Amino acid sequence: MRAGPSQDEIRRQNLGALLRYVHMHGATSRAELTTTLGLNRSTIGALTTDLAAAGLVSEGTPKETGRAGRPSLVVRPESARVHAYAYSIEVDRLRAARIGLGGGVLDRRELARPRGITAAEAAPLLARAAREMQQSTPTDAICVGAGVAVCGLVRRDDGLVRLGPTMGWVDEPIGAAIGAELGLDVPVVVGNVADVAAFAEHTRGAATGCDNLIYLYGDVGVGAGIITGGRRLTGHGGYGGEVGHMVVRRDGTRCECGSRGCWETEIGEHGLLRAAGRSDTQGRDAVLAVIDAADRGDAQAQTAVRTAGDWLGFGVANLVNIFNPELVIFGGAMRDLYLAAAAQVRSRLNASALPACVEHVRLRTPALGDDAALIGAAELAFERLLADPLDVS
Amino acid sequence: MRAGPSQDEIRRQNLGALLRYVHMHGATSRAELTTTLGLNRSTIGALTTDLAAAGLVSEGTPKETGRAGRPSLVVRPESARVHAYAYSIEVDRLRAARIGLGGGVLDRRELARPRGITAAEAAPLLARAAREMQQSTPTDAICVGAGVAVCGLVRRDDGLVRLGPTMGWVDEPIGAAIGAELGLDVPVVVGNVADVAAFAEHTRGAATGCDNLIYLYGDVGVGAGIITGGRRLTGHGGYGGEVGHMVVRRDGTRCECGSRGCWETEIGEHGLLRAAGRSDTQGRDAVLAVIDAADRGDAQAQTAVRTAGDWLGFGVANLVNIFNPELVIFGGAMRDLYLAAAAQVRSRLNASALPACVEHVRLRTPALGDDAALIGAAELAFERLLADPLDVS
Repeated sequence: MRAGPSQDEIRRQNLGALLRYVHMHGATSRAELTTTLGLNRSTIGALTTDLAAAGLVSEGTPKETGRAGRPSLVVRPESARVHAYAYSIEVDRLRAARIGLGGGVLDRRELARPRGITAAEAAPLLARAAREMQQSTPTDAICVGAGVAVCGLVRRDDGLVRLGPTMGWVDEPIGAAIGAELGLDVPVVVGNVADVAAFAEHTRGAATGCDNLIYLYGDVGVGAGIITGGRRLTGHGGYGGEVGHMVVRRDGTRCECGSRGCWETEIGEHGLLRAAGRSDTQGRDAVLAVIDAADRGDAQAQTAVRTAGDWLGFGVANLVNIFNPELVIFGGAMRDLYLAAAAQVRSRLNASALPACVEHVRLRTPALGDDAALIGAAELAFERLLADPLDVS
Repeated sequence: MRAGPSQDEIRRQNLGALLRYVHMHGATSRAELTTTLGLNRSTIGALTTDLAAAGLVSEGTPKETGRAGRPSLVVRPESARVHAYAYSIEVDRLRAARIGLGGGVLDRRELARPRGITAAEAAPLLARAAREMQQSTPTDAICVGAGVAVCGLVRRDDGLVRLGPTMGWVDEPIGAAIGAELGLDVPVVVGNVADVAAFAEHTRGAATGCDNLIYLYGDVGVGAGIITGGRRLTGHGGYGGEVGHMVVRRDGTRCECGSRGCWETEIGEHGLLRAAGRSDTQGRDAVLAVIDAADRGDAQAQTAVRTAGDWLGFGVANLVNIFNPELVIFGGAMRDLYLAAAAQVRSRLNASALPACVEHVRLRTPALGDDAALIGAAELAFERLLADPLDVS
């Protein structure tokens, strides 16, 4: 129930649409922008002029096209100048990157993260990484904000991490902590890692043009970034997508959330290592070691991988019945598990899900790999710019 | 990535917004429309004139307000004149209604439905009900279409009922069959009963203003109509919301879908009657008889109701973790079960769901009762009118 927009709103919408297009597709000719956005040439010209004056795009002649006639001018995002900081706080590492408008990673840092580090301890490390990267940034650069991906329940309204069970976090204001340490006077937006990775794959990865998808991310815990009808599922408070806590075995193993038999107790790191008889190890390398042992014929590792793969397919079948997605992407350690047990996953999925729901679903690994978390975190920061380009820059 | 709309699109959007407002809220003063829609008085005047000329609204003076000064004119939907036919095809009955713009039920018919009736057999009965109701319709009436609610998987693109396990339907073109029998040259839109009931409760029932909700509908089967971020979840093919086929017990009872241990085998009609030792009975009355027996102290019925209530809470907890809804509504036989076992439902939900996801969730029964299916089916038919009022009327 929304009335039509005012002239001002239309201009803002058009500026945002143009900037979003070059952010997603890179250098684009005025002719293509005219066609794609359904606006006339003079409107495209005026919008481009405004965006260029704000330092967000530049115009130039394209590379030699081989065609006759005067080539259409090309509009490019100012990728080296307009940027966001992106962070990913993971179970075993902290990552920071500087990401340009257009989605390219301009610079990056990675730190090992002792399990158990608090938000207050992590924030200065992350801010220092940003300051290091800032030294090689052009002096006229525009930083539009920072985005943070975390493994946990993030309150939508203020980015408070309500619960990060695998990190031992309860009510950690990581966004505010990083903001204070950064001292850049830009907003710091926090999101769940699966949500932002889904966002990144949807914007410029394996799920472009796909309106109904589930991005499953796992390490110790398992969560999903879900897009339905082209829009991110957040839920009432921002906690939607906690599929790892879907109970699949009432009599199952105790979960860190306090419940029992949660899906992540069967497919997460702990479950796989326990089944492989390697509970004394931990981390992604330990998971990969089990998969490697299974490849080399270790019977216990093989059983562990197959069983976890079967449970992976079991839970995916439930989600396919509930969401009828077009695409399921397996990220983090779920990627490793899926690749090691694709036959079990597909077989359980086909046996368990409704034929109508499963008939068109594709199973995929991320196109952006582990960078999805960083690129998605940056997308969170770019959203404000794309919604109202001239207000932010 | 959408450019701003053209003048024509804005006019259409404004006409739709005004008509939608009076459709949802009934008679509304021009002053309130001006404020609510954020448009100026002359625009509201022009839009109203256009809609009145098309016979969709009328203008008049309001009832005595007691205030001094000239009262603002009131815009009313032409409820008796502009209408849709609505059908609900249920396990045990067929219902038909004529529903006016504004959502009021103007007339209705109900027929018992022998279990096992086909779409081809049902269509003439439903069309006949419409013809009967048509006899008391004003001669200048405008029928904008028909909507049909069915218990089954409905393909979004063309309304084909891919599977209605509780009705024994496979690939039944019920929309086309009703359209041919009606002979009114209006579109017939088909939707899943839980989806349309959720739509109705969201538009004018227990969930108005609530952007994240799950409407759980059950009889023999169980499905959900899900609204996230204010929009209906349909999924890629239209089959989203098949929560009844979320497997909750790998070793559970065989389900009509071919899988095992689906949620509906524990909370649906068959599971409850089986647990109560009454598998020789069927239908809503049989379910109510079990609940009544439990009320009167029958131990086996009490155990059956409590166990089913516990499983109801179990599945709702999974959905609450996945969707983080603000509201869960229990419709059909799920309403009866929820009311009989609310303590078990809430207790299992609280024990099983993540505190952050469950903290704001409200559990409710439908405000529109069993009419939600009919009203929601009519909303499907009204959608086309509201999207482009002058094109349809």
